[in-house]
Amino acid sequence: MAVYTDVSDEELEDFIASYAIGALTSCKGIAEGVENSNYLVHTESGRYILTLYEKRVRREDLPYFLALMQHLVARGISCPLPVKDRSGRTLKELAGRPAALITFLEGLWVRRPNIEHCHALGDALAHFHLAGADFPMFRANDLSLPGWRKLVQSIGAGADEVVPGLAAEIDKELGYLDKRWPADLPQGVIHADLFPDNVFFLGDNVSGVIDFYFACNDTLAYDVAICLNAWCFESDGSFNITKARAMLQAYEGVRPLSEAELKCLPTLARGAALRFLLTRTYDWLNTDESALVRTKDPNEYLRKLRFHQRVKSYRDYGLGKH
Amino acid sequence: MAVYTDVSDEELEDFIASYAIGALTSCKGIAEGVENSNYLVHTESGRYILTLYEKRVRREDLPYFLALMQHLVARGISCPLPVKDRSGRTLKELAGRPAALITFLEGLWVRRPNIEHCHALGDALAHFHLAGADFPMFRANDLSLPGWRKLVQSIGAGADEVVPGLAAEIDKELGYLDKRWPADLPQGVIHADLFPDNVFFLGDNVSGVIDFYFACNDTLAYDVAICLNAWCFESDGSFNITKARAMLQAYEGVRPLSEAELKCLPTLARGAALRFLLTRTYDWLNTDESALVRTKDPNEYLRKLRFHQRVKSYRDYGLGKH
Repeated sequence: MAVYTDVSDEELEDFIASYAIGALTSCKGIAEGVENSNYLVHTESGRYILTLYEKRVRREDLPYFLALMQHLVARGISCPLPVKDRSGRTLKELAGRPAALITFLEGLWVRRPNIEHCHALGDALAHFHLAGADFPMFRANDLSLPGWRKLVQSIGAGADEVVPGLAAEIDKELGYLDKRWPADLPQGVIHADLFPDNVFFLGDNVSGVIDFYFACNDTLAYDVAICLNAWCFESDGSFNITKARAMLQAYEGVRPLSEAELKCLPTLARGAALRFLLTRTYDWLNTDESALVRTKDPNEYLRKLRFHQRVKSYRDYGLGKH
Repeated sequence: MAVYTDVSDEELEDFIASYAIGALTSCKGIAEGVENSNYLVHTESGRYILTLYEKRVRREDLPYFLALMQHLVARGISCPLPVKDRSGRTLKELAGRPAALITFLEGLWVRRPNIEHCHALGDALAHFHLAGADFPMFRANDLSLPGWRKLVQSIGAGADEVVPGLAAEIDKELGYLDKRWPADLPQGVIHADLFPDNVFFLGDNVSGVIDFYFACNDTLAYDVAICLNAWCFESDGSFNITKARAMLQAYEGVRPLSEAELKCLPTLARGAALRFLLTRTYDWLNTDESALVRTKDPNEYLRKLRFHQRVKSYRDYGLGKH
C-alpha cells in the first residue's frame, strides 16, 4: 500500500487541465501497488489512474512501458491506456516525479485464485505474449541472471539473518542456474510480475491486466514459470497441480509450448523462485521499519524454490502429454 | 493512510450481494483516513465507500454516527448516506469488523485552504449545526475535559520525551481549563474533527462533509474553535487572521454567535488545541514504528495552544463587532 508523494492542489489542477478530460471532481490515493504512488482520479469525462513513478522505476524505461500499453490496447488486450495530454504526450511530470495518467479498468483481483481463475490467467498470458510479438521496442530484463548476481552480492551474508544457511543455499542455486539457464528459447515481451494483484477479473473472466513496470524482453516461458509460482501454490506452501494444469493447458490452447520450452520449465521455475526470493530478501534487509510497505516474506519463495529443485520434469506441473 | 483489514473475495461478494446495488465491479483500498479501513467500491449501480470500523471506534457508537448521516442528508446537508441492505440495515459486519456502505461524494479536500475555502467552511459548519438541532440521539464527547484528564494520566511523564517540560505545561493548561471551561453555552451535535481532509470542495464550493466518527453532543462554539485551529493557521505556525475572520463571518451569517459564545472563544480554542495536542502526544508515544499511519506532529498543536494563551479577546480572531 502506498502513496509516497503528496501533490499540492494547484499542481494537481494544472496537471489535469493539461489533458482534454474535463475538470477534476475527485482524487483519492490508492492503498495498492508497492513501487509507485497511485491515485484514482475522477473528472467530468470519466475515471483514471494517476501514477507518480517513484525511485525504483527508471525514468528512461517509462517510454517502453507506456508505449507497450498503447501497443497492447491496439492489439485488443484489455489493459490501461496511457492518456495523451493536449500536446500528445503521455509521459509527464508532477510534484517532481515522472507521472502518467492511464485509463481506469473495472475488475477485482482475486486474493485466492481458484482453478477457473488459473485457467483464465493462462489464456490471458498467452494472448499477451502473442500481442507483444511485434512490439518494436526493447528492454533487457535487469532482474535475470546478471541482476541476480548483483543482488546476491549486495545481500551478502545478510541472507543468513533471514534464514540460517540461506546465503550458501542461494549461492549454490545461482551456480546451478548459471550452468543450466536456457538462452535459445522463444523470446518476446514478458510481463515479469503477473501476480494475482495485477490481473483483474469480473466473475471468472479476466477483465484486464495492469502494472507493466517490470515488463521487458526475455524468454516467454520464463513468464509462464513466474505465474506457476505466483498462482499455483496454496497459502500453506503446497503446490496445486490442478491449478498448474489448468493454467498451462489454457496457455497452450493459445500458444503451444515447444518441447524445448517444456523441458526447461523446471529450471525456469527455479529461476523465477530465486528472483523473488532475492528481491524479497533484499527488501527484508533494507526496508526500514517506518516504511509504508509491508515487506513480503522471503520464506514463501524459498519454499517454492525447494519445491522446484525436487521436480523431475514438466510432467510434475500437471502436463501429461509428450 | 490506512487499510488495516483484508477482506476475502467471498466475504466481499456476499457482503455486496446483501444490498440491492448490482454486482461488484471494482474495489480499491483508499490511502486516506487514519481510524478505519476504507474501500472505494464500484458496482453496476454506482460508487460507494465501504468502511470497516477498526478498534478505535466503539461499536455501540456506530448507530449514532450512521443515523446522524441519514438525518443530515434528510435536512439537505451534503454528506455520505448510509446505504440500507435488502433487510433495511445500515450497520453490518464484514471480516469480523463492524462495517457500513455509504454513498460516494465527489469533491477534493484542499491541502492549503485559502480565504474563500475558510469562508465556505464557516458557512457549511453553521448549516451543519442548524441541521443537527433536531437530531434525537445523544452521544457525550469522550474527548472533552474528563477525557483529557484520562489522556494526561496515560501519557504521564512520557510527554517530556516529545518536548522537554511538556508534562508540566499540559498540567497547568488542564488546571486552567478545568476552572474556565464553559458549561452553559448553546449545545448541539458537533462534528468535532472538521479538518480540511474531511471537507470536500468542487471549486470554491463545499461539495460535502465526511467522517462523522467523532461527532457528539457538545458546545457548538467548541466546534468553531476546532475549525479555527484546523483551518486558520499557516504551515509555518502563524495565525492567519484574515482566514479566521472569513470563517467566523460566514458562520455568523448563518448562525450568529452570542456574546457569551464569543467571550469564551479563546478558552474554547485553548481546549481544542489541548485536545489535539493530547491525542497526538499519546499517538506519538504509543504508535510502533511499523504502523501504517504517519504519526502527526504534536508540536503543531503545542504552538497553537501557546498562541491562544496569548489571545486577549475574540477580537484577536478578526471579529470587529461588539
